[in-house]
Amino acid sequence: MVADLSNGAAWMNGEIIPIQDAKISVTDWGLTRSDITYDVVHVWEGKFFRIDDYLDRFMVSIEKSRFDIPQSRDEIKSILHEMVGSSGLKSAYVSMVASRGTPSVPGTRDPRRCDNHFYAWVVPFIWVIAPEITKRGAHILLAGGTTRIGTNSVDPTVKNYHWGDMTKGLFEALDAGYDTAVLLDDQGFVTEGPGFNVFAIVDGKVITPKSGMLEGITRKTVLEICAELDLPHEAKNITADEFLSADEVFTATTAGGPVSVTRVNKRILGNDARGPIAQKITQTYWDWHERETLTEVINYKV
Amino acid sequence: MVADLSNGAAWMNGEIIPIQDAKISVTDWGLTRSDITYDVVHVWEGKFFRIDDYLDRFMVSIEKSRFDIPQSRDEIKSILHEMVGSSGLKSAYVSMVASRGTPSVPGTRDPRRCDNHFYAWVVPFIWVIAPEITKRGAHILLAGGTTRIGTNSVDPTVKNYHWGDMTKGLFEALDAGYDTAVLLDDQGFVTEGPGFNVFAIVDGKVITPKSGMLEGITRKTVLEICAELDLPHEAKNITADEFLSADEVFTATTAGGPVSVTRVNKRILGNDARGPIAQKITQTYWDWHERETLTEVINYKV
Repeated sequence: MVADLSNGAAWMNGEIIPIQDAKISVTDWGLTRSDITYDVVHVWEGKFFRIDDYLDRFMVSIEKSRFDIPQSRDEIKSILHEMVGSSGLKSAYVSMVASRGTPSVPGTRDPRRCDNHFYAWVVPFIWVIAPEITKRGAHILLAGGTTRIGTNSVDPTVKNYHWGDMTKGLFEALDAGYDTAVLLDDQGFVTEGPGFNVFAIVDGKVITPKSGMLEGITRKTVLEICAELDLPHEAKNITADEFLSADEVFTATTAGGPVSVTRVNKRILGNDARGPIAQKITQTYWDWHERETLTEVINYKV
Repeated sequence: MVADLSNGAAWMNGEIIPIQDAKISVTDWGLTRSDITYDVVHVWEGKFFRIDDYLDRFMVSIEKSRFDIPQSRDEIKSILHEMVGSSGLKSAYVSMVASRGTPSVPGTRDPRRCDNHFYAWVVPFIWVIAPEITKRGAHILLAGGTTRIGTNSVDPTVKNYHWGDMTKGLFEALDAGYDTAVLLDDQGFVTEGPGFNVFAIVDGKVITPKSGMLEGITRKTVLEICAELDLPHEAKNITADEFLSADEVFTATTAGGPVSVTRVNKRILGNDARGPIAQKITQTYWDWHERETLTEVINYKV
């Protein structure tokens, strides 16, 4: 009997299983210490987008986390292809995860003495910002009551599940009627939101924070698009005031691409309509999904 | 057939199961956002120690996390008694956990729209600092390269799995030959270590950090012991220098009680022998495990 994988699938311990059966131990340090790193690549219309960039970042995260997993980069890539191919999902959110696991020596509290492990899962495409919000433009709150976790505590360039600050900021935003939140660091500079990087367009230049946040592949793609479209662009420290005075603002995520923002705090941008430069970048982003150099075709089995 | 629960047991969805079968979904936000809170009470020689204090703190953590779980405080208490009683474990580490769970509305990213859930597990007693280290006194490093996650990012009084800073500090300490680490906050004040609070004895007074850390039940017990023993004591901000100049230092955790520290960074305390005041407090702590007002007898089924 072939399992139904239409809700999603996972690869665990060499097997492809339905997503609802994919579980990890309640004592896994990936859970109990959030000692885990992951990455997410998306599949759009049957093709991975920039899978090599995501894999490169994931392998760096694994090294920085001092994980030693049995699978090589090539094996992980094969696993992702096989898993998505088996799922039949044509547009999907594909997660690859490496965890500290559990102690290899009973009773130890030493993270160097654990059996690290890898797993992956795929579900139908996820929109970090819902399509109906994307159409009107997102309303975001610069969360005043929550500071982004400091870079000297947890390295934000190593993609991680430490979302306590993001959840706190989200509650602030949702309770006040906004769609989502963006956090500032302890110096007051803009960082990122729950699941996305941010961009602003100020005096005709496309700017994005340069540190204190995940170095997103979609962020990288947007900067490359700016270069190709001859749009002035720069990664730099951005204050809350600068962000609030922007002509346009947009988010960028693997889970939905660039999304225009029409309101930041009480401020309405561009007469509450999505701005032209962000729209052009967004259109180009989706056009690039046709580029053969950036995509890999999946061999579907179903 | 009765399952073997000697390695530990869990309570999940109304059933008591072997610990090795206790798992949560790889898509549970308790994992993917570390949107989860927990507490740990210990069982010593067949009795819970201060279970009401732990339950009180857990219920506050649940409320502060805005979780709505089906079980009441009384039901949780019954579950813990039944689970430990079924396990047969006479001295144990008992974990109670509440998680955000997964969305109740497909596709939502809103933490207010999730099915929160509760589970619990028990394993044989865990020593955060191994007994052989406890005997000679622990060697700890004030981690210079890692700052404790800020209180405006993640509330440390809500017991949580955001251990990225602790793991980073642990690597610093272990790589340099120390047993464990203690982290400073961004103001340079001492906070806590991975799984324990800290105390110092300076000019005859027992001091412990007053903010920026978990308000441990063992910490509370130590302060009560100081009061009973007429030892001057105070919760206050403690600088690294003050900590390094202490006459005695000790840690305090549910998973092992107070433990003397004989070395902090390059400094050797008390001629490398455990100090008399910490020893007295430690002895009293274990003596208090005989007090009926602080304990609850478990009704074992095996």
